[in-house]
Parts: sequence; C-alpha cells; structure tokens
Amino acid sequence: MNKLVNSIREAIVLSGLKDGMTVSFHHHLRNGDYVLNMVMEEISNLGIKDLTVNASSLFDVHTPLITHIENNVVTGVGADYISANLGRAFSKGILARPIEFRTHGGRPSDIASGKTPIDVAFIAAPTADAMGNCSGKYGKSACGSLGYAYADAMFAKKTVVITDNLVPYPMQDWSISEDYIDYVVSVDAIGDPKGIVSGTTRITRDPVGLVMASHAAKVIEASGLLKDGFSFQTGAGGASLAAAKFLKDIMLQKGIVGSFGLGGITGYMVDMLKAGCFRNLMDVQCFDLTAVESIKSDPRHKEISAMQYASPNSKSAAVDSLDVVILGATEIDTDFNVNVHTDSNGYIMGGSGGHSDTAAGSKLSMIIAPMFRARLPIVTDRVTCISTPGKDIDVLVTQGGIAVNPKNKELKERLLKAKLPIIDISELKEKTEQITGKPQTLPKGDKVVAEVIGREGDVLDRIYNVL
Amino acid sequence: MNKLVNSIREAIVLSGLKDGMTVSFHHHLRNGDYVLNMVMEEISNLGIKDLTVNASSLFDVHTPLITHIENNVVTGVGADYISANLGRAFSKGILARPIEFRTHGGRPSDIASGKTPIDVAFIAAPTADAMGNCSGKYGKSACGSLGYAYADAMFAKKTVVITDNLVPYPMQDWSISEDYIDYVVSVDAIGDPKGIVSGTTRITRDPVGLVMASHAAKVIEASGLLKDGFSFQTGAGGASLAAAKFLKDIMLQKGIVGSFGLGGITGYMVDMLKAGCFRNLMDVQCFDLTAVESIKSDPRHKEISAMQYASPNSKSAAVDSLDVVILGATEIDTDFNVNVHTDSNGYIMGGSGGHSDTAAGSKLSMIIAPMFRARLPIVTDRVTCISTPGKDIDVLVTQGGIAVNPKNKELKERLLKAKLPIIDISELKEKTEQITGKPQTLPKGDKVVAEVIGREGDVLDRIYNVL
Repeated sequence: MNKLVNSIREAIVLSGLKDGMTVSFHHHLRNGDYVLNMVMEEISNLGIKDLTVNASSLFDVHTPLITHIENNVVTGVGADYISANLGRAFSKGILARPIEFRTHGGRPSDIASGKTPIDVAFIAAPTADAMGNCSGKYGKSACGSLGYAYADAMFAKKTVVITDNLVPYPMQDWSISEDYIDYVVSVDAIGDPKGIVSGTTRITRDPVGLVMASHAAKVIEASGLLKDGFSFQTGAGGASLAAAKFLKDIMLQKGIVGSFGLGGITGYMVDMLKAGCFRNLMDVQCFDLTAVESIKSDPRHKEISAMQYASPNSKSAAVDSLDVVILGATEIDTDFNVNVHTDSNGYIMGGSGGHSDTAAGSKLSMIIAPMFRARLPIVTDRVTCISTPGKDIDVLVTQGGIAVNPKNKELKERLLKAKLPIIDISELKEKTEQITGKPQTLPKGDKVVAEVIGREGDVLDRIYNVL
Repeated sequence: MNKLVNSIREAIVLSGLKDGMTVSFHHHLRNGDYVLNMVMEEISNLGIKDLTVNASSLFDVHTPLITHIENNVVTGVGADYISANLGRAFSKGILARPIEFRTHGGRPSDIASGKTPIDVAFIAAPTADAMGNCSGKYGKSACGSLGYAYADAMFAKKTVVITDNLVPYPMQDWSISEDYIDYVVSVDAIGDPKGIVSGTTRITRDPVGLVMASHAAKVIEASGLLKDGFSFQTGAGGASLAAAKFLKDIMLQKGIVGSFGLGGITGYMVDMLKAGCFRNLMDVQCFDLTAVESIKSDPRHKEISAMQYASPNSKSAAVDSLDVVILGATEIDTDFNVNVHTDSNGYIMGGSGGHSDTAAGSKLSMIIAPMFRARLPIVTDRVTCISTPGKDIDVLVTQGGIAVNPKNKELKERLLKAKLPIIDISELKEKTEQITGKPQTLPKGDKVVAEVIGREGDVLDRIYNVL
C-alpha cells in the first residue's frame, strides 16, 4: 500500500473527483493558507466543473476562488465565515446558488449526518507521515489544533492530506489518524507562516474598549457563575481580550480555579492556564504562536474536534458545559438578535463561526460592542442579518450601559445589585442615535446571495445582494 | 444536560434496551473485569431476553454469562477471543446460535459498516468525567489503552460509561470523548486490579522455548527486514518474549533503530522503546503494569483504536505497515493454516484476536510453537479449526527446525544462506510423530457451536460441539 502520490493533480485524479461533486477544506492556516488555492487551480486545470466548495472558513487569501466561480468550476459555496474582501465579491451576487452559511458546530453535524456529504476532503497538514497520520502542531507551517478538519477526514468519501513536512512513519503525535486518509501529497509549502498565526494579538488600549472590558468582567463577577469550576470562552478581539485580562485579575485575587477555557485559543487564554485560572484548555483552533507552542508542549492544553467543540448532533459538546462566552457583533437588535455576517451596509464580512454554538450552549452569553462604529449605531430595530437568535443572547455590554435580555430576570437583578449601569436596550438605541443620528435604511437587492443556517439546521435568515 | 445516572440499572432503562437487541463490551480489564457481569445481572433482573453480547473478548471471569444463556437472557455471542473455561462450556453447545468469532480488526470493521450494529455499548472506564470523557490510563483500575472500545463508543446507538474514578469535567487526558457518550455511571469498582494486568509477564526459562526464541530472532535477522525503520509485534507468551529479548540484543548490537512496536504491549516492548529499538509504540491494549505506566507517561507510547490497529475497512491500519509479527498456534497444518481457537481436543480456548490481522498485514508472519504439547503434535494434516489461513503465514519456528511456507521462496533462500535449520513442514510433522506417535482423530459433534469469520467477512471455518 502506498498513499504517497507525486502531486496534488495526481491525488485529485485518483480521488475520482468529477463534475458536480463537493470538495472540502479547513481553515486553520487562515489567511496564510496556500492549499485551497493550489487544489482549486489543479481542479480547474483538469477541466472539472460545477463543484461545491465546503470550507470551514474562507479568507481573503482565497480570492482566486472568484475566478473559479466565474469559470463555473465552482457553483456552490458553504462556509462558517467569509472575510471581508471575499465577502464583498459574494455580496455582488457572483454565485448562482446562495452560499450556505453554517456554524462551527452545525457544519460537522451536517457532514456527519450525511446532509452535506463531502466527496473529496483536502487536509492541510503541517506535519504528516506517508500513511496520512497528521498533526498541526509541528513543522514550519505549524498551526496547532486541526479541530475543524476531523469531520472532513472522518466522513469524506476520499481524503487527501497535503503537507510540507513529511516525516517517517509513524509520526509520533498525530491528531488525525491514517485510518481516515486515502492519499498523501508532499509540497514545498502549505502556507505562509505570517498569515497562519498572528505573532501576538493585542489587548485594546482604546479607552472605550477598556470601559467595555471592565464592565464585561464585572458582569461575569456579579453573575454568580464565577466560582471554582468556572469555564470560559472569548474571542480574539481587543476588547474581549481586555475583558479576559480583567477577569484573570479577579480570579487570581479571589483564588478561583476554573475548569476549562474553550474555543479558538489565544495566548491570553494560555496565560490564564499558566496562572492557574483554568485546569484545562480545549482547543479547536489556535489564534497565535503562543497557543501553538502551548498545545504542542502542555498536556493540559488539549486539541478537540469541531464535533466535540460544538456539534448539536454530538451526544454532548464542550459548549454545553460552558459557563460564559464573550462574543462580538456588528449589529444587535432590540430583540437581542445578533448580526456577525454582514457589515451595516449589508456586505458579507464574517459569519457565525462558533458564535451561535457557544451562545446556545453557555449559561451566560455576552455581546461586547461599542455603541457605534463609524457613526453607525450597534443597536438597531432589526439586524440586517440574524446570525444568532436573540433567545440565545443574555446581555449586551457597551460603553454606554449594559442591556440585559428581558428573558433573563435573575441576571438583571444580580447586576442591579452590583450597581452596574443597566440600561434597557431600546433606551440604549435611542441614546446612541442621539449621538450618531438615525441611520438611513439601506436598499437591498432582490437576489439571495446567502442563506444563514442555524446550528439546528433551520434557515435563520437570508442575505441579499448589495445594490 | 446531565448524563450522570444513579445506577447501571437506570442507565440500562434510559438506554431503551429491549428484547432482541445487541449489547457490547470491551476486554481491557481482562480477567479482572466486573463490568460485563454487573451489567448482565441488571439486564437479567430487568427481565430483558434474547440479547446478543458482542464482546471484544470474553474471559473466565465472565462465567456467569452461562447462566444468562441458560435463562435465555443471552441467545447470541460475538467475540474475538474466549478463554478456556468459558470456551469449554460453549463447546458443549449451550448456545442455540453459533458464536460469531471475529478478528480484532474485523470486529470494528463490521461495527463501523453496520453489519453488526450495537444498540447499547458499555464502556468500562478507569477514569471518566460526568460528560463521559474517559480514559484507561488513570485510576485504581487503570488498564492503559482503551483501543478496542472506540468502535463501540463511536457507532453504538447508545453508549454508557461505567467508571470507578469520576473526576471533575473536563478530565485532562481523555481517550474517548464526550461527543460519543450518552450516560455515565459511577460504581465502587469496575474490576479487580490483580486480574486487569499481570505484574510482569515472564520470559521463558524453558530450554525448548529458548531454542525456539533464538531461532526466531535469527530468522528475523536473516529476513532482510531488520534495518532502520523496522516494525514489530509479538505476543505475551514466554517464547515470544524471549525472541523479543534476543531481537533487542541484535538491534542494540547493530545499532538498528526501528520505527514502531505494535499491538497488545508488554513491558518488554516498553524496554525496547526505552532502549532506543523503536521510535514509537502503538498500543491497542496494555498487558502489564509497565505498559500501563508507560502509555500514561511517555508521549512516544501512543494509544490507537482497533480501527487504526487492524481494521480491513480502514483506509489503512498500522498492521499494513508492520514488518514482522511473532504469533502462536495450538495447531498448524501442512498448508500453514493455523488454529488458535481450539485445543487439539476441539474445545474452544482462544480466538484470533489480532492473529489474522497482523498475519495478513505484516511482511513476515512467524508462528513460534513447540513441536508438540502434552504429546500432541503441533503440525497436523488439517487443523481442527482454521483461524488464520495458511496464505498469510510465512514461517513456522519450532525447536525441531524452521519450516518456510513454499510460497515464500526468497525467505527460504535467505534462511538457508544464514545456515538456519530449515525443514519441510511435512518432514517436521513426521519427525514429531516419531516422538509422539500419530494422534488419534477425534470424533466431532454435528452441531456448529461457532463460526470463525475472517477479517474480510468470509466464514473461514466452523467449530463443532465436542462429544
């Protein structure tokens, strides 16, 4: 048995890829990824048409995809997140079929259940052996966790590992094992290390951000959840990281030992692990070099699959045990529905990722956002796109006050008792509009460019072309 | 969400187990296992009948199963191995349907493909958290690898974890993850440590065994396979371990660095790892305390699932990369077919385990066995039961000479060149019978008590009741 083939082209041919099939990619190499472009170029050269690309996320580096769409090589796209430049092209309506947006938990759920079958999965592997055992932890293109790639590897009909660090069999510390892999290709480079992980994500120094972060930490402190066994997820945004920093100080001061930090992991979560704020990190994706180093060397820092992270189809997922998550928003409406898919002009510039999954699973889901950005208010009557339904959001923290979802009476009482600046979300909207003015309603096109599919499979919203 | 239930009985009720269904068990607790008996007793108390028990192996500690069979609680049995006392009962024909014997690779293959679906899997877990993340490495009942339990956990409709060491969520170093687990039960003890692992398996001191072991090591040395990257599996029998010892000496003397040791892992394989004979161990089951300690603490010693170990349904398994395996036999015939299921009297006293899988996958599969046991010759015209087909066996090593399968001309030439005592297998049979006399042919019953299903799903042989 020999899985090692000479080129990506040979692997594609051997995989039996044909017109109309689905190929898949994972996004751990982020904006440094070479693999999707290399594979799609060979597919295009082979004259294969009408493919669906199922990617856990797409970044601006994947802009060549637009040419493949124009040439009918690609006629369908599924993703959990699409970055702004690429999103702008999609918002112009270049794709005949709507994009299918899923969540980081919904995607593996639909792959595992057979709802969105994958014909050929391509795994970008920073280290692999010739039988396909592979890992993201080692090699010049190390990205840490390969969490989002597990479902692709396990359920695709054919799976191709593409690596730039082929090591003797068996590689010592594999993540995805050979029993799922059909072909292995060795290439010069699978990505640009500068784009794969950031050096360090910076805590905000912006005074507004620091006010929000301080509020956020105090909300968590007052919520009743901050005690031994506490579990936590936060994003990599500057204000979220600042909130994590304030939270860390409170935990250390009070001697609270949490259970786990979850999610896409940054160096700040690693710091909290090292400081004793958590017993464990559960990591589906590493955001920076500190996280990559930690998952490689610290046994308390464990890789998890997207199924174990967030799939609603799993018998349980880590999000189901999560106490608090801090999330972002481009818009939030007075029913607490959150938009993270489009900007206020309606252009695609993001996606749910784990937003809806953690909001649904956690005991306290907090949105942290400034009252306005570029004179556009964050609170609206109705978000341009419902990414996460308001029923799953507990509280909004801004520099102008903290709005609690009315469903969560107990939390409101606790925050009032802690003398935090509580404000009704409609009042917050009015207060903001007194500063910014009332934004104009934007005309939207009549072509659906994307469907937002909730983690349970329901269509939450549709995104229209921008005129 | 709360998976933690109060008792095994409650877990069974919640699982929806009904008459006619299939329950499954794994055998890492070996002859110290309490779990199968505890579960079957509760099932019996609940009045559920006509079940199939799919166990990776059954040991004498599971003798209460006979009562459940007599009471029609259990009417079907599947296993990869059944030990002698229990086997003797089965050979008397107590079960209406034949036992289905599979291999350690064939069993997970048939579970994964849906050929042998499991309704409720019971996982004996030496450590677990309340969401079902679990491991065999830690706790008073530590058994090391849980390799055989992965398929059960991943593909059963319902999965129950039973542990005697419940730890806070998330346990740090889980093997099987919560996304596969429905219920968790905490009990006082899942097994008797004395029966779970042996203290140390002993190398033979028997002169006959040492002669065979020395021959075995020399065959490997002469085979051309013993070079850097060499991979190896051996059983826990005294002569096999002695062969490993001689092999280790040769490897150290020649400075050969092998790639991996595979299989059920003993302290002797751990010694070879520590001595630098291998870069890695791939471990589906730990045989002794040294192996348990090693898999817990040495990152080079990795747990593998039975799918990754040996499944013919996997895209590749470790056995496919194996150079040499040393295996045992109760009988071998002049066509090199091997029996490891019955003794020479026809009583069930074993099973293929990984025998057929490693024989099929390895480049050199060697049987090591004495010419006779209790005056019964090892070489026969036709084995009582074909466990592993002769096409997959390369060479038989006895104290009376080394018989090479005629299909393997190159190996014969190499061994002759190395001046090893080569003998035709028919001559070896005659030579043995000159010592032992010709054994009587045993009368066999007309009831099929077991079917031996090869790793690819073909019925290799049938075992009849003993009169």
